[in-house]
Amino acid sequence: MAPQRLSSAAEYKSLLENYDTWMFDCDGVLWHGDRLIDGALEVLSLLREQKKHIIFVTNNATKSRKNYKKKFDSLGVEASVEEIFGSAYAAAVYISSVLKLPKDEKVYVIGMDGIEQELAEEGVAFEGGTDPADNTLAPFSLKNFKPDPAISAVLIGLDTSINYTKLSKAFQYLNRPASEGKSGKPVHFLVTNQDPTYPAGDGLLPGAGSISAPLRYSLKKDPISLGKPGKTMLDCIQAKHHFDPARSIMIGDRLDTDILFGQAGGLSTLLVLTGVTQESEISGPDASPIVPDFVTASLGDLRAAI
Amino acid sequence: MAPQRLSSAAEYKSLLENYDTWMFDCDGVLWHGDRLIDGALEVLSLLREQKKHIIFVTNNATKSRKNYKKKFDSLGVEASVEEIFGSAYAAAVYISSVLKLPKDEKVYVIGMDGIEQELAEEGVAFEGGTDPADNTLAPFSLKNFKPDPAISAVLIGLDTSINYTKLSKAFQYLNRPASEGKSGKPVHFLVTNQDPTYPAGDGLLPGAGSISAPLRYSLKKDPISLGKPGKTMLDCIQAKHHFDPARSIMIGDRLDTDILFGQAGGLSTLLVLTGVTQESEISGPDASPIVPDFVTASLGDLRAAI
Repeated sequence: MAPQRLSSAAEYKSLLENYDTWMFDCDGVLWHGDRLIDGALEVLSLLREQKKHIIFVTNNATKSRKNYKKKFDSLGVEASVEEIFGSAYAAAVYISSVLKLPKDEKVYVIGMDGIEQELAEEGVAFEGGTDPADNTLAPFSLKNFKPDPAISAVLIGLDTSINYTKLSKAFQYLNRPASEGKSGKPVHFLVTNQDPTYPAGDGLLPGAGSISAPLRYSLKKDPISLGKPGKTMLDCIQAKHHFDPARSIMIGDRLDTDILFGQAGGLSTLLVLTGVTQESEISGPDASPIVPDFVTASLGDLRAAI
Repeated sequence: MAPQRLSSAAEYKSLLENYDTWMFDCDGVLWHGDRLIDGALEVLSLLREQKKHIIFVTNNATKSRKNYKKKFDSLGVEASVEEIFGSAYAAAVYISSVLKLPKDEKVYVIGMDGIEQELAEEGVAFEGGTDPADNTLAPFSLKNFKPDPAISAVLIGLDTSINYTKLSKAFQYLNRPASEGKSGKPVHFLVTNQDPTYPAGDGLLPGAGSISAPLRYSLKKDPISLGKPGKTMLDCIQAKHHFDPARSIMIGDRLDTDILFGQAGGLSTLLVLTGVTQESEISGPDASPIVPDFVTASLGDLRAAI
């Protein structure tokens, strides 16, 4: 089954009529690095004029929602913190509300300050992250390592300060017999998202999924992923905003995260080709099995509905 | 089919009669970190008295053969550099003799000085490795990165200074269109070995396979592995020593590297239980499909043959 290619003004108009809640991936849809996608601002304004419900859903866990809003501000994109959902926030909510981590247990973090801020806001104690003691290329000594029995989860996101000390500590916690931890249970293995790469302004670089890959490989275990396409992110959104999936659409540039996320939640999906997905992935012999409902070249195309 | 459990003096004696060439894995077989396995020295002396051909085969690529010999010396184990085969050496031989890398092309290295020394001895030019410019936790700027068109292979081994700059550079080279490199061909993706973990003196830590895992994951490509259980290592040994596989035995502590390596080369295999393999992996419902010919608790057991 092929997706519907949108091209006429009538098609874009009917899209506007059919959906009340519009969920957007950001990088590759609204902007590339520090450059807005042509027409994105006008389309968002049009949706706001029509009183549509707008939600931004990002796997970027390097920034908290508050800091991510600064990115919107800097590009002149109207957004409130309540409209922004990031995978670091989804992870923090999962740990506090689903795992219900007791207050005297802690999370070992491989990641940047976005994760730390979201954990702190949810009242979850943590170690690692931006702690200078772990941000080092000095040799790691297993002999001198004193594992903290209070660690009962390891959470990994994109961390551009990844190093062998962080990997070794996370490995020790995740490989520890359940009996040696305070909780008496195996340590939870969590990742903010599994994106293999992310679009830096000037090209692709290894993403959060690559940062956790050494642990998946050495432990032969798969983590629980909290970002897109996982269901936890949508549960977070549903808990704060009440949307009707049948009247909602997810717009993204990535089939294996954005489109799969929308489909798993029963939303309609629109793929834009301004990001990582190539034309060859949606038609022809190498097409992906993940098929969006609609495809358009760029979000800016929706200006035709005016 | 179950392996033969050795226990009687007659069984150990017949082992000595049946094999002329004895190949040994080192860590977990001869020693643990800085501690010799009980009886290992006597067994090696016995084999030398009987004019057996002794070869040491290690996936450790952090040391060159010359530096690895110092480890033997420090523990009082007789060995010559010619008897030692490491995965860094196998990788260097593969690049110079099989890939026949032209002298004006280079290898980008993620790894330690063992790899650099073996590449230099084989006359292979390289970048990265222990270069201070790459051993940094400073942010990596794709914009300021000037890829070297002469790089036509990326070689990855255990690197306890692994960081995001190294991963990003390797990703850029391996993801580069063939047309942009000097060779006009896709960049070779090579690893010294795929061991998920390695036995540090005080427990397990992430191994070489974990260091290359981010690139396998982000590129969705599998590398060529030069260490055990790969065939390249045995080809290197065969080129220097001429052994008859039917009269040779491989002794190791790891089913998926040592034992598989011996089996792939048509050698007999002896598993010792002084390393990473547990009893439950060779018998019972969770037994591995990799079955050695013989099993004994420790190399020291062979003293019974005297």
